[in-house]
Amino acid sequence: LRSWTLKPSEVLAPKDFEASAISVGLKQSGLDLALLVSTRPSFGAAMFTTNAVKAAPVQVSQRYLQINQGRIRAVIVNSGNANACTGPTGIVAAEAMASATANLLGIPVEQVLVCSTGVIGTTLPLERIITKTAQLKKSLSVTSLHAASEAILTTDTINKVCTAETLFGGTPVRITGMTKGAGMIHPQMATTLGFVLTDACITHDLLKKALSKANQGSYQRISVDGDTSTNDTLAIIANGGAGAPSINQPDKDYFHFVDGLTQVCQSLAQQIVRDGEGATKFVTIRVNGLRSEKQATRVARAIANSPLVKTAISGEDPNWGRILCAAGYAGVPFDANLVSIALGGLPVCLGGEAVIYNESHAQEILRQEEIELTIDFQAGSSNAIFWTCDLTKEYIHINADYRT
Amino acid sequence: LRSWTLKPSEVLAPKDFEASAISVGLKQSGLDLALLVSTRPSFGAAMFTTNAVKAAPVQVSQRYLQINQGRIRAVIVNSGNANACTGPTGIVAAEAMASATANLLGIPVEQVLVCSTGVIGTTLPLERIITKTAQLKKSLSVTSLHAASEAILTTDTINKVCTAETLFGGTPVRITGMTKGAGMIHPQMATTLGFVLTDACITHDLLKKALSKANQGSYQRISVDGDTSTNDTLAIIANGGAGAPSINQPDKDYFHFVDGLTQVCQSLAQQIVRDGEGATKFVTIRVNGLRSEKQATRVARAIANSPLVKTAISGEDPNWGRILCAAGYAGVPFDANLVSIALGGLPVCLGGEAVIYNESHAQEILRQEEIELTIDFQAGSSNAIFWTCDLTKEYIHINADYRT
Repeated sequence: LRSWTLKPSEVLAPKDFEASAISVGLKQSGLDLALLVSTRPSFGAAMFTTNAVKAAPVQVSQRYLQINQGRIRAVIVNSGNANACTGPTGIVAAEAMASATANLLGIPVEQVLVCSTGVIGTTLPLERIITKTAQLKKSLSVTSLHAASEAILTTDTINKVCTAETLFGGTPVRITGMTKGAGMIHPQMATTLGFVLTDACITHDLLKKALSKANQGSYQRISVDGDTSTNDTLAIIANGGAGAPSINQPDKDYFHFVDGLTQVCQSLAQQIVRDGEGATKFVTIRVNGLRSEKQATRVARAIANSPLVKTAISGEDPNWGRILCAAGYAGVPFDANLVSIALGGLPVCLGGEAVIYNESHAQEILRQEEIELTIDFQAGSSNAIFWTCDLTKEYIHINADYRT
Repeated sequence: LRSWTLKPSEVLAPKDFEASAISVGLKQSGLDLALLVSTRPSFGAAMFTTNAVKAAPVQVSQRYLQINQGRIRAVIVNSGNANACTGPTGIVAAEAMASATANLLGIPVEQVLVCSTGVIGTTLPLERIITKTAQLKKSLSVTSLHAASEAILTTDTINKVCTAETLFGGTPVRITGMTKGAGMIHPQMATTLGFVLTDACITHDLLKKALSKANQGSYQRISVDGDTSTNDTLAIIANGGAGAPSINQPDKDYFHFVDGLTQVCQSLAQQIVRDGEGATKFVTIRVNGLRSEKQATRVARAIANSPLVKTAISGEDPNWGRILCAAGYAGVPFDANLVSIALGGLPVCLGGEAVIYNESHAQEILRQEEIELTIDFQAGSSNAIFWTCDLTKEYIHINADYRT
């Protein structure tokens, strides 16, 4: 059985990829403009926010994807300004970012994805970006992926990257990802910004399917505050640079690729939760024993989004009634008298009622930074897993004072 | 045109109603057990939480309502313990509370509604309640409604009451209500605890319809944290004590009654929002110009529940992008380029884009304790109104440390 070697804090360039990152003054300080490029023809796929209000770069990228026949060569991305709710001016700005990039690289404009993140409703200072793209091209290198992963951050406190390595037919292949998160993360609505590069060789159709599958098992299973961005984008570029055998049917190689991609996306998604705005705890929610995975996921999401559950965890309070209560309003029918709940393996509720447990043991579990909630419904054989964080005063502080 | 005189901080007993409240040690201090009684035969109606996990008193009250043929004479209610997630023991305890009350008053047990609020998952100390019910009966009086309105509170900082008065055929009629709120309020899921007493004379059928209508226009339009209790109950008792003409068909008198009841319930619901856990601002959200009231309500609810909108308001930040963003994930399609947003009458977004506004004027508006957000979609002629509060560090403090 082949496996992937996961390096969750490394961002090693796959073959024939380069990156660069510079500061153009969109953020108060630090890198805020990044470019990711495949130096050879490549396929790409992307998924976007389901918000009815889509930022200009999302609208523009979606249009390009409809005409580029699966070809994506580059991603241009800025932080500090979301270019959302900016009207026709915003569309022109996003197109200008893409076309400046395409001209520099000598590729068709529709092969450029354009992304933005930051404040909503403020006109993008386009000149600052356009006048610096030449500099961006000049600093392209295989070692600049780390800088790029910094340039996409907003309220994140740490950069979020992951590299996975394996062999296809004896040839080393890499999947490398970077992401940004913090607040505004909600599973139902695609993702935050996430970019994955791979030197695997895979058809466009299978690449799209693999991304969708990996997204389901990763970004769709996290929640920070239940809000959804206007800008969420998850994109992948595959360029075949490794020289490994081509993946062109849903065979073992394909499933191995999906496995690696899912692992990378899970690592990225979990890093987002760990760095959730103001978060002090990483919470894994396991919902077991419902009639369908859809029901289990719905219940897990309700628990993950409940402010009362999240504040109880922040307060290290074994208040399991709030977990059961949140499950109860998920819109999934169940018999409360069959439910069991465990905190970090310690049963606190059996058959819908309190069980006597060792308070100091419970305290010890809740003092940990990693907490696992398991809730079993005894109503079926479907399960779901979800990752979230606690809700703290620091979250309020960050979000009350973000713009001003 | 007849109108109602509203007294939002008064709780004046309608004719032939009595109340009492005592302390039985369920809360650390203060009144925690209340009784509301009609001294003559009366009709009643009630609405309950839609949470799949229903507290024992909700289950018991729902069963009584199925067999009492619309007759409700009394409500027994405790705070400090929700008697939820307490299994068969909890059911027995709720039944015992009702039957002790019925015995004292000499009425059938199914004419007693039983309600609880407080911590979930802890066995109700039934003895403390049962041994004190005689004392509860002894202290029944027409002046104890205020004490009763205190006894139903949990994390509330103030009691919430309202009296409305009018004339029916020249005869004075009262509708008097009390409620408790703070956290765990969510519109889709019936209500928090709310009790309304009236000496109007109305048939059981019309009383039920009037309550449902009033609930739609009040409790269904507020949000504190989006969570929903296992115990939410809104009940009304009408005893005809005023001696006014009977309301027995959907005529002008009926609509006048519905109007008064809605005003009382709106006042109570708004008092809940004003006293939302940690809240410092009262926010009115007006959604205009959508294709249906359902769509407008859905958008208003998404805005009202958005942690990012609520923290922005707490931070007095005119971050209208978050309002548009929350509207965007409500599941209602619209053209972002047609949307306008105003804060307290000051336009901040027109046609989906920022408008230049006077920053100091915006600051002045946001410094107020009452803030009105208006969002217009230009997509239809349906509107909705919603009331919510801001999300503050104090909310986290209250909920992280509630049980411990």
